[in-house]
Amino acid sequence: MDEYLAKRAALIAEDRVGRLDSGRREFYTADSEKADGIVRRIRAAEAISVWGADNKAVDGADDATHLFPGMAFLTARELIVKTKLFKIMSKLPKGSLLHAHLDATVNARVLLDIALKYPAFHVRSSSALSEATLKTVQPEFNPLAPSAWTEHRSLTNASYTPGTWVPLQDARRNFAFGGPEGFDQWVLGALTISPAEAYRTHNTTSKIWDKFTSTFLTSSGLIHYMPVWEQYVRTFLLSSIEDGISYIEVRVNFWHKLMLDADGGETITHREWLSVFDRVTNEVKASMAQQSRADEFVGCKIIYTTLRFITPEELVWYTEDCITLKKEFPHLIAGFDLVGHEDSLKPLIDYFVPLTEFVERQKEEGVEIPFIFHAGETLGDGTPADVNLYDAILLGTKRIGHGFSLIKHPKLMQICREKNIAVETCPISNEILRLTSSMPMHPLPAVINHGVPVTLCSDDPSAFGNMGLSYDFFQVLVASETNGLHTMGCLARDSFKYTCLTDEEKAQAMTSWDKQWSKFIQWVVEEEGFVEVPEEAQPSSTDFTNLRRLKKA
Amino acid sequence: MDEYLAKRAALIAEDRVGRLDSGRREFYTADSEKADGIVRRIRAAEAISVWGADNKAVDGADDATHLFPGMAFLTARELIVKTKLFKIMSKLPKGSLLHAHLDATVNARVLLDIALKYPAFHVRSSSALSEATLKTVQPEFNPLAPSAWTEHRSLTNASYTPGTWVPLQDARRNFAFGGPEGFDQWVLGALTISPAEAYRTHNTTSKIWDKFTSTFLTSSGLIHYMPVWEQYVRTFLLSSIEDGISYIEVRVNFWHKLMLDADGGETITHREWLSVFDRVTNEVKASMAQQSRADEFVGCKIIYTTLRFITPEELVWYTEDCITLKKEFPHLIAGFDLVGHEDSLKPLIDYFVPLTEFVERQKEEGVEIPFIFHAGETLGDGTPADVNLYDAILLGTKRIGHGFSLIKHPKLMQICREKNIAVETCPISNEILRLTSSMPMHPLPAVINHGVPVTLCSDDPSAFGNMGLSYDFFQVLVASETNGLHTMGCLARDSFKYTCLTDEEKAQAMTSWDKQWSKFIQWVVEEEGFVEVPEEAQPSSTDFTNLRRLKKA
Repeated sequence: MDEYLAKRAALIAEDRVGRLDSGRREFYTADSEKADGIVRRIRAAEAISVWGADNKAVDGADDATHLFPGMAFLTARELIVKTKLFKIMSKLPKGSLLHAHLDATVNARVLLDIALKYPAFHVRSSSALSEATLKTVQPEFNPLAPSAWTEHRSLTNASYTPGTWVPLQDARRNFAFGGPEGFDQWVLGALTISPAEAYRTHNTTSKIWDKFTSTFLTSSGLIHYMPVWEQYVRTFLLSSIEDGISYIEVRVNFWHKLMLDADGGETITHREWLSVFDRVTNEVKASMAQQSRADEFVGCKIIYTTLRFITPEELVWYTEDCITLKKEFPHLIAGFDLVGHEDSLKPLIDYFVPLTEFVERQKEEGVEIPFIFHAGETLGDGTPADVNLYDAILLGTKRIGHGFSLIKHPKLMQICREKNIAVETCPISNEILRLTSSMPMHPLPAVINHGVPVTLCSDDPSAFGNMGLSYDFFQVLVASETNGLHTMGCLARDSFKYTCLTDEEKAQAMTSWDKQWSKFIQWVVEEEGFVEVPEEAQPSSTDFTNLRRLKKA
Repeated sequence: MDEYLAKRAALIAEDRVGRLDSGRREFYTADSEKADGIVRRIRAAEAISVWGADNKAVDGADDATHLFPGMAFLTARELIVKTKLFKIMSKLPKGSLLHAHLDATVNARVLLDIALKYPAFHVRSSSALSEATLKTVQPEFNPLAPSAWTEHRSLTNASYTPGTWVPLQDARRNFAFGGPEGFDQWVLGALTISPAEAYRTHNTTSKIWDKFTSTFLTSSGLIHYMPVWEQYVRTFLLSSIEDGISYIEVRVNFWHKLMLDADGGETITHREWLSVFDRVTNEVKASMAQQSRADEFVGCKIIYTTLRFITPEELVWYTEDCITLKKEFPHLIAGFDLVGHEDSLKPLIDYFVPLTEFVERQKEEGVEIPFIFHAGETLGDGTPADVNLYDAILLGTKRIGHGFSLIKHPKLMQICREKNIAVETCPISNEILRLTSSMPMHPLPAVINHGVPVTLCSDDPSAFGNMGLSYDFFQVLVASETNGLHTMGCLARDSFKYTCLTDEEKAQAMTSWDKQWSKFIQWVVEEEGFVEVPEEAQPSSTDFTNLRRLKKA
């Protein structure tokens, strides 16, 4: 038997040799091993104490809610935040955030509060509002020049003509369905995805994408107003830092060629967006330095994106625009991408000509703007969205956005391993957008075991409610017995490797991260309420699918 | 661009080189290519005509049912049977059925009809029946010796004492909740899993396993009665043949050491089970030969199984029993397995000692009984059920039952490829038992692309409603654009390779299959109503996740 167990251990080790946390002994210390043990014990104990209560009604869900670790995020969130495991994941230094869309990165409530400060903001609805239509009719926002301000004072009185602008403050004050509170609820509902939408009424990829897209249409009117935008960018950076994120490459949608100025005029060019972005980033860095927290924020770069529904001819304007911006802001433009629902919009191959011309033009202009393409964000097998993975890689993508279907492609996984092409995995996004029903069904554990470089990302946290990276780290840690605290640490630390930073900057970022990690480990092993989680709370098998038996015991 | 497209085609081919349908040009003919085209056109057309109607209420489901190809089987079934694609899958010669549990292979209605012929059958309920308890209180069946027959004539009158046996016929006739029809509905509900149970009330792996297990407890009382069993085995073989299955290795549960005889006495030994099984199989073979259909039925062998909850000490009785049976029926015993819910029952490693002793004992007795283990039928990552895969392979398993979590194990997949260890994949079973929410989320396409040998299986068709193999073939074909008719053909033909037949028998079985395949291809290309499916019905992208756009167009 001993001989067999040795052979077995060797096989398991060989099977896991490609994992990012394998062969990283330099990363392990006596304290980190102790912290890992604490985390595993807490996870096992909470599997019973938190996720063991079946049919608990949470977050407005019906009484048939079945709890388990890694379950549907929107239903689980209010339980997640109460766990010790989440407290630990919140404090963990996260490294880089490499896949997030700027327009969905600031908490919806915070965004609305910022907008409410500006009398220029108006709101309208496309059809008459009633209790019945509140969930389907979306508000539309727009800052208007004073000359265009209207006499209308309510969206909900009998005389309201759908499509007419009403001052935001008035519309809110006079809202017939619950006053300001009801108004806010209506707006926040339009800016976020609810559990009922994700798990019942919109329970297919295409339906939930409809809802998801509508959140961008609603928020767009609030964000693309320079006085708001500046505060929006600052809020995004500060809240990310508070969540332990020290470096960001954020996707900015440049599809709109102009943003509105303070007077509601459509006059602000992309160049000015970047100037403001640059200034805000520098202010945040300076402020961090002032607080002796310079280590916690390396910076934030931009991945230039436009939308996958434009024509190949139209793309040329954007690639040229991107080159112009790169020349003026070389430190800010990190890459180029095309975004939108892959299953229904144009595949990459449709843009082959302008994309290869873009590469040529970069050489002519002496700039380098790597592709960082979305690809394979799909359940399809052999569909155009799945096939995007081949084109992304052949076109030389530096990382892969989502790559959800990558596990189906052994050759492409090999290329990713060889060329260090990281997959920007967005666990909670994938689950809410119905690519997976829960974390245990997500392909991430397979991708990790196959040695493909991975980085965890939040994608669109204001729509999904997974602000920062703590929730995504939590969902990944809680749904696998193989992953431990070192796995999460390696995921965070390795994220710098796949950034567009220079080698020197990467080394510096990792050194800073190492300091934060040491502090974090120290905190875990010393924090009251952690160490005393009893050994006996740990079931002999920490098998989350095995809860029922444990509960009965 | 041409150069790029050539490079791209080469990369796609390299990525798919391990697929079972790759490099099989000998398998393709002008007619089979034509048939494949027909199938792809039908699939694309039906993606819109059948799966394009959203929110259609089917099979008693609520009005929020979202249709898509490969969707939840129990909700989709009544639509599936109306499709041309299903008609084609029904006629396709399926090759071998290598993973099915005998006690769940005969249609529940047919089983009940057989039982109704025997006056010895009695039924009881453990608590009082009412409209409210009908869905949770299960009937229990037992044939009683005439001396034990009772005076009771109804399960539902006021004087009924729960736990008291009532003659089946009387209980049915006098059933207060809808008479005989209501009685049958109650029994069939206990023998099968309903959409509401699978997708709402029992929507976790552990809860649905409770219901699933209860179907076996109910059917056990009907099946383990020799007069029924003989007809049961015959019905299983004949219905399999009608579905195009030509060879079977069926798992028989020998946990009960004795079966009831015609008089209700617990006297029938395993030896007698096999005698009857042997005779029935031979009768079916003879009858097929008489009809000049010998090619359609190669035979049926038994995989000896007992349950994963017995102690390692208890296992020894079964391994010795298995050896005894193998010596008397060498042509019938094909392998050995331990079955039951892996997430909650004992892992393979617990049985290491008796299992290795079993191998030694086989050598002493001069027999060879390969292990054909269930392993990795789980969503767990690094849990004991997932780790079963290492032990199954180290213990030399010939095939892997389910292997749902195998995709997480690169080294084990390599071993499966090298040693030709086939994964017995049960797509519909996995979906109903909540390992996957739908076929597009199933890991099968990844497993196929990684070149791991695969065979499609039905597992427990009487509980799931996926009688035969046509439904499982359908679900696999409809949810992938990469799979085509040749893929399904290769899956069927290759299944013989992984059987316990001798090389000579395998070659013969494949030759017979080839004849059926030719006939089948001929039928597809000539059948009225197939060829005329218009080319224009095929969307430019046959992307099933893209239905919404197509529907709008």
